[in-house]
This record gives sequence, C-alpha cells and structure tokens, in this order.
Amino acid sequence: MDQTIVEGIIKKVMDQMGDAKTEGAARCGDAIPVELSGRHVHLCEEDIQELFGAPLTYVKELSQPGQYLCKERVRLIGPSGVIDNVAVLGPARPKSQVELSLTDARILGIKAPVRQSGDVAGTPGIVLTSGTGLAGLQEGVIVAARHIHMSPADAAKYGVADNQKVDVHMDGNRPAVFKDVIIRVHKDFRLAMHIDFDEANSCGLGKNARGKIVGLTQEA
Amino acid sequence: MDQTIVEGIIKKVMDQMGDAKTEGAARCGDAIPVELSGRHVHLCEEDIQELFGAPLTYVKELSQPGQYLCKERVRLIGPSGVIDNVAVLGPARPKSQVELSLTDARILGIKAPVRQSGDVAGTPGIVLTSGTGLAGLQEGVIVAARHIHMSPADAAKYGVADNQKVDVHMDGNRPAVFKDVIIRVHKDFRLAMHIDFDEANSCGLGKNARGKIVGLTQEA
Repeated sequence: MDQTIVEGIIKKVMDQMGDAKTEGAARCGDAIPVELSGRHVHLCEEDIQELFGAPLTYVKELSQPGQYLCKERVRLIGPSGVIDNVAVLGPARPKSQVELSLTDARILGIKAPVRQSGDVAGTPGIVLTSGTGLAGLQEGVIVAARHIHMSPADAAKYGVADNQKVDVHMDGNRPAVFKDVIIRVHKDFRLAMHIDFDEANSCGLGKNARGKIVGLTQEA
Repeated sequence: MDQTIVEGIIKKVMDQMGDAKTEGAARCGDAIPVELSGRHVHLCEEDIQELFGAPLTYVKELSQPGQYLCKERVRLIGPSGVIDNVAVLGPARPKSQVELSLTDARILGIKAPVRQSGDVAGTPGIVLTSGTGLAGLQEGVIVAARHIHMSPADAAKYGVADNQKVDVHMDGNRPAVFKDVIIRVHKDFRLAMHIDFDEANSCGLGKNARGKIVGLTQEA
C-alpha cells in the first residue's frame, strides 16, 4: 500500500480524535484574574435597621459593578465560637446572607453547606451583633461555591454558558485544578474568578493570581 | 482500498496514541486513604528538656509506624498572634520542626514556606512555650508539602518512585485535582495521603476521604 495513503489515513484519524476531544469543551482562553473573598455579610433592610438603626454607609466600590464595601462591621455568633469585625457589603438585598470559609464555619460551630450566592433555603441560621443592635437569621449561612463572573461577550470568547461548570488550573506554588467552578454570566459582570481563603491557601495563591479554564467539568 | 486494512491502520494508530498517553505515567490504581494533618510540632531532645524538663509522654500510635501523639502540648507564639494547645508528636527528632497550615501561619504572622518534612534550612523561627518552659527555634516553621506515604510494594503497584510528583483527584463535595503531590517511599510506611486543613476544606473533604492518582505531574 502506498505510504502517502497510509499517512493520509493516519492524519485523518488524528484530526478526528482531536475534534472528539474538544467537542463540547470550553475553549482555553486567556488566564482569568482570581479574587479572594474573605468572610462577609449581605443584609436585608430589616436586619440593617435592627443592627444599625440607619442605612449602610458606602466606603468603596468592589470589583463587580454596583457592589460596595460598607463602613459598618458585625460580629458573627455561632454555637461554638465568635468572629469579630466582619465586613458588610452593600447594597441591601432581599434576604440576609453570611458567606464563610469552611475554616470559619468550623470556628463558629455551624454546618454551612456549599451553595451559590442567593440559594439559602434550608441553610443554618446565625446571630449577628453590631455593638448597638442584634439580628437573628433563621437561615442564610453558606460557603460560597467557587465561580467565575463574566459578561456575555466573555462567555462567547471562552465557549461557556451561564451555570455551566468548568475545570480551572490555578497557578499558585501548590498547583491544583479546581472542578465544578460555576460560570455566572450577566451583562454587568466583570471578568473575575472568586474563591475563598481555604481554596487560595490550598494552592498557595498570592496577589495577582490567575486561573485558566482547561475544560468543562465531567460528571464523575 | 480494503476496509479491513483501513480498520487495521486505525486500530494501530489508536493503540499507539494510547501507549503515548500512558508512557511514563503513574498507574491509576485503587483510591488512597487521605489523612488530615492538623498543626503539630516535632521536638529535638534539647527543646524537650527546655519545655518540659522530662521526656515526652506517649499517648497513642499514629498512622505511620513508630510515630505517636504525646500528652504534652505547646503554645506557638509569632509576631502577630498566638495558637494554643498544639499537639506534640514523638519520638524526638534531630531538629525541632513546626508544621502549620497557611491559615495558621497568617494568624501567627510567620511567612512559612511549603517544604517537605525535615527540609527546614533557612525557614522562619518561632517561640514555643509549655506553661513551665520556653524554647526559641531559630528555624523550623514550614507548611508541609502534600505527600503520599507508601511501601516499596505499593510504589510498584502504582507505578511510581520515591520523590516523584503525581496528580491526585480528591473526591470531596468540591472536587479538585491536587498537583505536585510528593511520593514518599519507605519500607515502614503505611499507604496514606497527608494534606492539611486548608487543602481538605478547599475540596470539602469529610471523614474517610480518598484520593486517586490520575498521573504524574507535568512541569508547567
């Protein structure tokens, strides 16, 4: 058989295998800036009144447009511990929500589940104090699921869609690939991956850390 | 051209690609039990005398043969914080060593590097107290690099060698693949992967967690 025919067939097989590998997979584009989320709370209007008796005080804009850090701070009180001086983010939300790392949750003695922001039904409650006021949350304590904010244009560029889960290679000095990283697409979102400090520490991430999408997460 | 010839060629190409993929790669065997290492110290004879004025008191065997938990506890004192009630492991070692998570290091205000156990040259120092004694370490504070203890028989089974680095898929509820996991082979080692609590929390590992070797870590 002619050698060129064999080479042609081999090339065709290789090409097809290459296609099969990338089909349905996210495109590996530019690295994505990683931001570390410390513990913080979002408050509803009623809890803001109970805690501070006045509206929240704007301090500075955060990376996602419209979100801001406030001057107010709260104490988190759980069954087995207390964490002071916790950041309050504005604006007010329909429901109060407390976002912790699993390390924080262990200190407080609260079994916080890993959830997307806003998905608080059936989660544990907590007590918040401000020095002058107190608010008891029936539910709302979560560990935020790792996620990437992006605009529709970025989603198109990376070949991903809202709510898809991707694998992301983290470039710290303890390298790791995080799976189940949720894509969140909104026209107002700025490109940023959000992880907590447990996640950052586990891969030794410093400032200006970046992550690279390496594929869609395959179901185990 | 005869269809069977084409199929023969395709099979040969696929086989060769399969070989190329597994060549030099660790074999993916049974899942490996994962043990979480909390912060702890190993002490040299001199520091044991300074802290306790007496030998260490055996309490119970740990997973690696010959290593044991002691009754004694120490306080860690760093530039920006203190951590109490820290476990002391026996037997005495030639050099004292303090193993922390990056979360612990941040609390103490110590820039601890990620190192293999025993590799403490040039690492930061710390002060230890016991309630009755005090020891100042010139160096010895590390974040232990994640690793897998295994016997020579296990190393053969998994197709890996001492000091190789592997990728390990962690089966927690926040799934991840840890890279640069160091293989440590010794005839007395019992099969176990050791990670710290930052790493465990980042993948939501509970009790009886397991990891699966998925390949050798490729240099980035």
